[in-house]
Amino acid sequence: MKERLSLFDTTLRDGQQTQGVQFSTAEKHQIAMVLDELGVDYIEGGWPGANPTDSEFFADAPNTRATMTAFGMTKRSGRSAENDDVLAGVMNAGTPAVCLVGKAHPFHVTTALGISLEENLDNLEASFAHIVKNGREALFDAEHFFDGYKSDPDYAVKCVHRAYTAGARWIVLCDTNGGTLPQEIGEIVKAVIASGIPGDHVAIHTHNDTENAVAGSLAAVLAGARQIQGTLNGLGERCGNANLTSIIPTLLLKEPFASQFETGVTKDALKGMRRASRLLDDILNRVPAKQAPYIGSSAFAHKAGLHASAILKDPTTYEHIDPKAVGNSRIVPMSNQAGQSNLRERLAQAGLSVEKGDPALARILERIKEREAQGYSYDTAQASFELLAREELDELPAFFEVKRYRVTVERRKNKYNKMVSVTEAVVAVKVGGERMLTVSDSVGPDGSDQGPVNALARALVKDLGPYQDIIDDMQLVDFKVRITNGGTEAVTRVIIDSEDKDGNGWSTVGVSANILDASFEALVDAINWKLIRDGAKV
Amino acid sequence: MKERLSLFDTTLRDGQQTQGVQFSTAEKHQIAMVLDELGVDYIEGGWPGANPTDSEFFADAPNTRATMTAFGMTKRSGRSAENDDVLAGVMNAGTPAVCLVGKAHPFHVTTALGISLEENLDNLEASFAHIVKNGREALFDAEHFFDGYKSDPDYAVKCVHRAYTAGARWIVLCDTNGGTLPQEIGEIVKAVIASGIPGDHVAIHTHNDTENAVAGSLAAVLAGARQIQGTLNGLGERCGNANLTSIIPTLLLKEPFASQFETGVTKDALKGMRRASRLLDDILNRVPAKQAPYIGSSAFAHKAGLHASAILKDPTTYEHIDPKAVGNSRIVPMSNQAGQSNLRERLAQAGLSVEKGDPALARILERIKEREAQGYSYDTAQASFELLAREELDELPAFFEVKRYRVTVERRKNKYNKMVSVTEAVVAVKVGGERMLTVSDSVGPDGSDQGPVNALARALVKDLGPYQDIIDDMQLVDFKVRITNGGTEAVTRVIIDSEDKDGNGWSTVGVSANILDASFEALVDAINWKLIRDGAKV
Repeated sequence: MKERLSLFDTTLRDGQQTQGVQFSTAEKHQIAMVLDELGVDYIEGGWPGANPTDSEFFADAPNTRATMTAFGMTKRSGRSAENDDVLAGVMNAGTPAVCLVGKAHPFHVTTALGISLEENLDNLEASFAHIVKNGREALFDAEHFFDGYKSDPDYAVKCVHRAYTAGARWIVLCDTNGGTLPQEIGEIVKAVIASGIPGDHVAIHTHNDTENAVAGSLAAVLAGARQIQGTLNGLGERCGNANLTSIIPTLLLKEPFASQFETGVTKDALKGMRRASRLLDDILNRVPAKQAPYIGSSAFAHKAGLHASAILKDPTTYEHIDPKAVGNSRIVPMSNQAGQSNLRERLAQAGLSVEKGDPALARILERIKEREAQGYSYDTAQASFELLAREELDELPAFFEVKRYRVTVERRKNKYNKMVSVTEAVVAVKVGGERMLTVSDSVGPDGSDQGPVNALARALVKDLGPYQDIIDDMQLVDFKVRITNGGTEAVTRVIIDSEDKDGNGWSTVGVSANILDASFEALVDAINWKLIRDGAKV
Repeated sequence: MKERLSLFDTTLRDGQQTQGVQFSTAEKHQIAMVLDELGVDYIEGGWPGANPTDSEFFADAPNTRATMTAFGMTKRSGRSAENDDVLAGVMNAGTPAVCLVGKAHPFHVTTALGISLEENLDNLEASFAHIVKNGREALFDAEHFFDGYKSDPDYAVKCVHRAYTAGARWIVLCDTNGGTLPQEIGEIVKAVIASGIPGDHVAIHTHNDTENAVAGSLAAVLAGARQIQGTLNGLGERCGNANLTSIIPTLLLKEPFASQFETGVTKDALKGMRRASRLLDDILNRVPAKQAPYIGSSAFAHKAGLHASAILKDPTTYEHIDPKAVGNSRIVPMSNQAGQSNLRERLAQAGLSVEKGDPALARILERIKEREAQGYSYDTAQASFELLAREELDELPAFFEVKRYRVTVERRKNKYNKMVSVTEAVVAVKVGGERMLTVSDSVGPDGSDQGPVNALARALVKDLGPYQDIIDDMQLVDFKVRITNGGTEAVTRVIIDSEDKDGNGWSTVGVSANILDASFEALVDAINWKLIRDGAKV
């Protein structure tokens, strides 16, 4: 009989403390759904009342299987829990669980709060009693717990006991400054449990300031804690929180954890780990960390010659787990047989069956290598990859040719003496024997100018003669820009996500020093791919 | 009396197995000097004979205080150590120390090598005896040791004893596949020491496949091992090796290590840690990892409002070490969670002293909040933040006004019938009472078109009349684009990093649905900030 280990995700709250990270409400929804699909037990959505985005998120929180949790702080001195407006803001979010940060370190009580140690204990008790009385599950985020314990073990333990007795379901032991090493975390967790807080009410919350947040979390579990708090991709203030993207696969796949514990994440859901991680990177427009454990693109890349050849005999020689378990895949140098069979599989997925040993395979691999060196990336831009392969296989129809385009952006005062922008794109295209000239502006639904890429896209799809029916339902749903290094010069990589009326999506890529040219390339790929998919004839 | 802990760096050997990494001989020299200055005990330079760069490096190895080490493999079966040409290639590098990889896992002996277990033991003995006989220090890189121990502890221990008895100075216990967790590493290291290999002859070599390489190394030291092997910035195959950039500060600054051990790295040399890490990134042309423990630019960045205000009272409230100890510094960025004290500190850093309680403080925070809701971000764009604050404080001079601009991108065939792009920007600007009209294209150093942002930037800085001297040395060094949600509409956020001739940088932000307008806003901010900094007068 396995013991249950609870997973508490705080990507949307502590993760938002990452420098440069600021989620929109829509993005928070999207991330919550990813977390829910993965199978975490709690989703901490933010601090309602503290900032508009978080309030908005809770006002229309997604319907998750995971317990939605609001974060806040324990009531302040000099008023009752009922009359603390900050706490009321948190309670009003109406979440089934509420997690409140409070002090457990004498230095912080007297210095930061400026109240007596006894008063802090009373505040803790009143706050958690208030939550429980209102029918919510309560979590005590015991800030600076480990530093507090090292400075005054009796008082730190007293704090968590007061909250626990008042009804807090979970006592969250926080290593707020991230300076406690795993061995010490294990010892202190053991001491807390020995003091009378049962392990299945003890949670661990670590930070990565010494690169030990994952190890600290695992040490706490070995010492008896039964909830781990962390974030996707290790997002979080300073060096980040404990990385759930690394912890979850370890819990499910490695001993002694795999035999001893079960979590809300199934083996099947674990296969979505890489996708979940990438989705967050996409939202943040971050380059995914290649060397990220388990899910990084290099995590199963075998470069050393000796390793690569052994891997072909038996992957367990140089792999600690099967990459498929986390939705990842093995990379062996492109040149060898494994590279080609990988490619054939990818082509088959695109409906292109190619014989083993076909010389086109080597040519395709060669061109991908070249293009990646120029700054292209085909990880997500499957449609562009497919077009490139079709070109080498001589299966790429020439539906149309863009002879030229011109885009103008003008910023000036309008008749109301207000600065406005006006963008226009003109495209000359040859379809069959016929030349067409189209023009478009880029005025958005609210009357504002949407800029040059928008104008160019609209002009392009305005009239493609016999193909117009097929492309009429195309929609540009996302547009990602990244400055990358192609060779020695910085170039711009544009990835465009398109969708048809049924919500089927495809992604294309373009690269150029000129952002508009890069966008144009991706747009043309997007159109061509749709024409092929829908069986257009030249 | 502190015990000595040995540090073995393998950035130049195992670090070179990183996907996409290929050092030149000159770069290897440069990195070796950085490592030597830092104070590691051993520098593993590569595998002489296995690839030309490594052979070249050893042919003219830098003169280091650290023990230069050549890597190779134990002699093959069917020939003597003296007659193994691969081993001879390693010995011929003439280094004072030689580290040979060999098997300690029965499965690998029989499957990968295809020899008997006894024969492997003989090969180990002969190889290390050969090195010692030739007056070199010998290290046994016991590949797959932990997996081997778990599969057959007797045989694994027998392997390391045979090498030790033959004279190997260090028995390097390798977790080659990176799958062994810290607790298990500690237990197995203890068992090896208990079997008779003294701890001060035991080294630990881990990989980061579960994000536990640092913790595994520390666990081994706590279990008695006295050498740590790793790489700068955690370079290495797959997820990388144990990160010395994190391990070294922990050993010097944190307990129980700081009191118990001494290493070759002095407290003074530790202050060069950040620089060493950056130098490696520079050589690899990598963007430094912001969240890297100890030395990342975000490692001491305090975003949460509560944290930031406490930090101002006493940095130890939210910092586990003094950032200066590793050559890093504190950042208190602006964000919608920041309080007034945080803001005043930020303003003071920008040379704007504002009284506590000044109503402008609330106005500035309000505007930052509004703008962040529109999609702006001031975490990195400090210069734009400063300009916004100056505006509210009535300390923003109006140096110039851009009346209008027009940018045209045209893509068409040139006279050689090749598709090319031509971009032109015209800017009308009013400086003092005078109107100026400037125009620029965007032809890059290689003759290619650099696109609309480049053209606009060039036209803007081409003639600002009396201010031209001040902006002449401005250079746009980076340009970041992110699609974000401002209100209900998707908008584009552009962040521009600029630099002056002395390499001082500043960052500005612009937001608009039109990417060119967003860029324009950031560019104008960049110019204004420089004019203020350099004391331009209206």
